[in-house]
Amino acid sequence: MAEFDLIRRIRETIGAPGPGTLVGLGDDTAVYEPPGGHELLTCDAFVEGVHFRRDFATFGEIGAKCMVANVSDVAAMGGLPTRAVFSVCIPPDVTDDDVIALYEGALAVCRRHGAEIVGGDTVSSLSGLMVSIALLGAADPDRVLTRSGAVVGDAVVVTGELGGSEAGLRALVDGLPDEGRVAEAKRRHLQPSARVAEARALIEVASPHAMIDLSDGLSSDAWHIADESGVGIRLDADSVPLAPCAVDVAGRLGVDPLELALASGEEFELLATLPEGEVERAAEHVEAVTGTPMTHIGVVTNAPDGCVLARTHEATPLVRRGYEHLK
Amino acid sequence: MAEFDLIRRIRETIGAPGPGTLVGLGDDTAVYEPPGGHELLTCDAFVEGVHFRRDFATFGEIGAKCMVANVSDVAAMGGLPTRAVFSVCIPPDVTDDDVIALYEGALAVCRRHGAEIVGGDTVSSLSGLMVSIALLGAADPDRVLTRSGAVVGDAVVVTGELGGSEAGLRALVDGLPDEGRVAEAKRRHLQPSARVAEARALIEVASPHAMIDLSDGLSSDAWHIADESGVGIRLDADSVPLAPCAVDVAGRLGVDPLELALASGEEFELLATLPEGEVERAAEHVEAVTGTPMTHIGVVTNAPDGCVLARTHEATPLVRRGYEHLK
Repeated sequence: MAEFDLIRRIRETIGAPGPGTLVGLGDDTAVYEPPGGHELLTCDAFVEGVHFRRDFATFGEIGAKCMVANVSDVAAMGGLPTRAVFSVCIPPDVTDDDVIALYEGALAVCRRHGAEIVGGDTVSSLSGLMVSIALLGAADPDRVLTRSGAVVGDAVVVTGELGGSEAGLRALVDGLPDEGRVAEAKRRHLQPSARVAEARALIEVASPHAMIDLSDGLSSDAWHIADESGVGIRLDADSVPLAPCAVDVAGRLGVDPLELALASGEEFELLATLPEGEVERAAEHVEAVTGTPMTHIGVVTNAPDGCVLARTHEATPLVRRGYEHLK
Repeated sequence: MAEFDLIRRIRETIGAPGPGTLVGLGDDTAVYEPPGGHELLTCDAFVEGVHFRRDFATFGEIGAKCMVANVSDVAAMGGLPTRAVFSVCIPPDVTDDDVIALYEGALAVCRRHGAEIVGGDTVSSLSGLMVSIALLGAADPDRVLTRSGAVVGDAVVVTGELGGSEAGLRALVDGLPDEGRVAEAKRRHLQPSARVAEARALIEVASPHAMIDLSDGLSSDAWHIADESGVGIRLDADSVPLAPCAVDVAGRLGVDPLELALASGEEFELLATLPEGEVERAAEHVEAVTGTPMTHIGVVTNAPDGCVLARTHEATPLVRRGYEHLK
């Protein structure tokens, strides 16, 4: 039975279980000793034609990006990723080598962050490729960061530079040639990183009240914090850090780079709120430890104000511009 | 954004988090205090046209069966299910009400076994419906049962009666009318149970060495134990407990009911090995506590013998008859 040959190859690819894992892939379940403190659990499914296209991304990039999406969720809670299970629905034209490449992409992300894959499911698909990951994480009970803790008066900060993922997606869909910073934008879309170290560095020197990762896009994810915390958020349009590759691509497409930044899903940057007095020191520390900038882009306001985008002479309602799935 | 309306309805359906769960569905990850002892983690994906057909099963049955497959894996390790995450890839013709019905089916299984759903992902699908579940469980470190512990001379036992799931599937595919026990076979296929209580009862009075749940089919799953334990297994054909509904359907189809029992995947019965001297008492206790029979169907032999099926006058190699996905 070919399925069992593939499972054998997957087990060889993954290798021996790590410390604390008593049974890895290959039994009815994985068995492990949970680390102390709180445990985190998240899942994300990636569907062909919706989240990725095989003519844009390699199998390794697809597996890696789905794992990054999960790791990013754990990072946004202030945790460290530990163990994952990885399911693949395999259409007829995807080979065993392709599936191994998916696993290798996901494994590389796990290894970068000290996590491991402990199980999975390989099943047939009659149509597209689908990857589904569930990931566990460990967190200090005193430093778990939800979406619901934002306090009126908090500063709103974001890591990194925004708009690159959406710029890269549009460059791929529109078939822009790799001139200027176009290839950089495409890489930003296809090979994102999770901000695990940035979240840990932030927690080390500050007491953030709420955090979320930018998976839907800044405009939607700001609303998630506002809704869950019962507050409003005022973002300063001029402060939003624009990725140079997003500015480049926006110019080629004739669109506003800020619009790209607001709509850009799958950035996997962190959006956090914290006491304003902590911002300067936190930003310095995060950048010193990780090399990633952290920018003060807004303030938490009263709930009735909702989320607004403030420009020099006006403030307008922040329209939720969720990640537009490939269609 | 309609996706967020659906997520709100899913949160209402699931209700408040249970004890020990600090953050349930609706944040970047769930947060919980792991129970003492070892933790178990498994996942299973169910794909439309491969694992289920919407003209055979209701949405509630699809959600429930995928959860049962996961709970059954936890049961087969000797554990109790605790927390699950539930991802759905939703094609255009599946409504929000349908997705809620999927969740309700899965939730009913969770509640039956004291588990809860703490997270999920709802994404678009361009083609079929796909459900992917990852499930955590808790186990006593001294009583974790893998596939790899079988010892030469062990008795091989199985819970319940076999062949019903395969019989029901064939009855559905062939469009057999609901005469005799045909409807019972269809229900057996569409509404299986997980043997959590049976596994616990077995562990209470015996020291099983290896266990697996019948998800691929008796003939394949016996090989899984043999391969992982480095042993052989001799099954006694006359001892395999045949479900009356499988015998009925086999008669209508003109096939051997034993062949149905050997090939029947998704039975979710337990196949275990234990010292022969413990079998009688264990079977009595399991049936007394749960109402489920447990039958002695074979013996663990030396590895070079492989898996064989013994009939009155001959023993033949046991051909792996894996679960034939719907195609």
